[in-house]
Amino acid sequence: MTDTTMIYGKNAVIEALETQERAFNKVVISNSTRKDNKIEKIKELCQQHNIVYQFVVCSKFAKYSDINHQGVIAFVSPIRYMQLENFLKNDYKDASVVMLDGIEDAHNLGSIIRTCVCAGVEAVIIPSRRSVQVDAVVEKISAGAINHIPIIKVNSPVSALHQFQEHNWWVIAAEADAKDNYYDVNYKNMNFVLVMGAEHAGISKSIKKLSDFQIKIPMMNNFNSLNVSNALSAIIFETVRQKNIKKG
Amino acid sequence: MTDTTMIYGKNAVIEALETQERAFNKVVISNSTRKDNKIEKIKELCQQHNIVYQFVVCSKFAKYSDINHQGVIAFVSPIRYMQLENFLKNDYKDASVVMLDGIEDAHNLGSIIRTCVCAGVEAVIIPSRRSVQVDAVVEKISAGAINHIPIIKVNSPVSALHQFQEHNWWVIAAEADAKDNYYDVNYKNMNFVLVMGAEHAGISKSIKKLSDFQIKIPMMNNFNSLNVSNALSAIIFETVRQKNIKKG
Repeated sequence: MTDTTMIYGKNAVIEALETQERAFNKVVISNSTRKDNKIEKIKELCQQHNIVYQFVVCSKFAKYSDINHQGVIAFVSPIRYMQLENFLKNDYKDASVVMLDGIEDAHNLGSIIRTCVCAGVEAVIIPSRRSVQVDAVVEKISAGAINHIPIIKVNSPVSALHQFQEHNWWVIAAEADAKDNYYDVNYKNMNFVLVMGAEHAGISKSIKKLSDFQIKIPMMNNFNSLNVSNALSAIIFETVRQKNIKKG
Repeated sequence: MTDTTMIYGKNAVIEALETQERAFNKVVISNSTRKDNKIEKIKELCQQHNIVYQFVVCSKFAKYSDINHQGVIAFVSPIRYMQLENFLKNDYKDASVVMLDGIEDAHNLGSIIRTCVCAGVEAVIIPSRRSVQVDAVVEKISAGAINHIPIIKVNSPVSALHQFQEHNWWVIAAEADAKDNYYDVNYKNMNFVLVMGAEHAGISKSIKKLSDFQIKIPMMNNFNSLNVSNALSAIIFETVRQKNIKKG
């Protein structure tokens, strides 16, 4: 394995060991970490999958002191991105995809990926430029969710959305200036791409223009500054609610 | 001012200067920071409110290198917590309060406070022990929202909830094992306290027992690990939806 990345933190490493989406080089455990059930589980999973694990003196972790590794780091292959063309080859019904238009914060990307898995979203799309990439922080914050959902990198968000539209997906832009509240739109019986904008800049003009709907979250208190991952959560679970709600 | 705390980051400092909820000692700006509109606004607001601001050499910021201060730090009085008794003296109608039962992560507390302000929540309650406290990281992540909502610290969450119940508030516990989905409950025409549990431990047994409703967010993909701030966002904006929706 020439190219490796880190997954750190007990839960994130357990998730990655369980899903086996990634090739493991080795798992390193600090001998000063508390030997709890999670460490036991990590050992068991390593044994089960023939993955090398080592207990090392805690000083070996000194160079990783800026990350919250909880005494566990796995060295693994980078995540496998999915090609948009491959994603669109499949048939979808009542499916959703989330596209992030220039998210800059690793915490936000991580918790968005996690929320998307919990809400049954089919894929997350990020631009290959002007965006935070999937790094070790994102993996940690996603609590392993990254291994449960395809991540698609695209060079041009606009042309990716055109491809979705050609496949009869609808494009919905979340946009503070939109007229419609997000809960006044019907998300049932369609495939849609929900586009969330960057923390400060919002959604680009060209995406706004090509979108089929624009929605906003109504803000109380004139405090118009919902974090993008919390905004995504409110909207995406409204789509879950609409799909799950029993018909009268 | 004997006791001071920091607010850092351009937006957080602007928010604090605008709301004037806090006493300012001074604002320090790195002379290497980009002189953008926000720095201009900070200068103007300081002049307007007779607050001392200083441009300093960037080396003065070296000791704060672990925080994302964007070259701006304000030294201010600590936040003023509200007493529960004072909060309950007022009359409320269709009001909501969020109680956090042992949240440990500063990022989560900050984004929960921000989400609560956006959703028109009346107050956020945190326990005085076994919980992250409002520090500079929380202030930063809250993007200044902390100055728009009362924070109530309580020694005993259980007895605080009893006090709410005596004032005819309903107590709703968000709990992964609950039977009811959060969107199947009617939140209209009542005052309620929504209790969110700690990242790992969830809600304490004694709170579960005294709660009037228990609700869950249905999880797709068997991935039952929604971040607490994203869970709060989904639930609290459902209550906003129900209150805003026009009657047929």
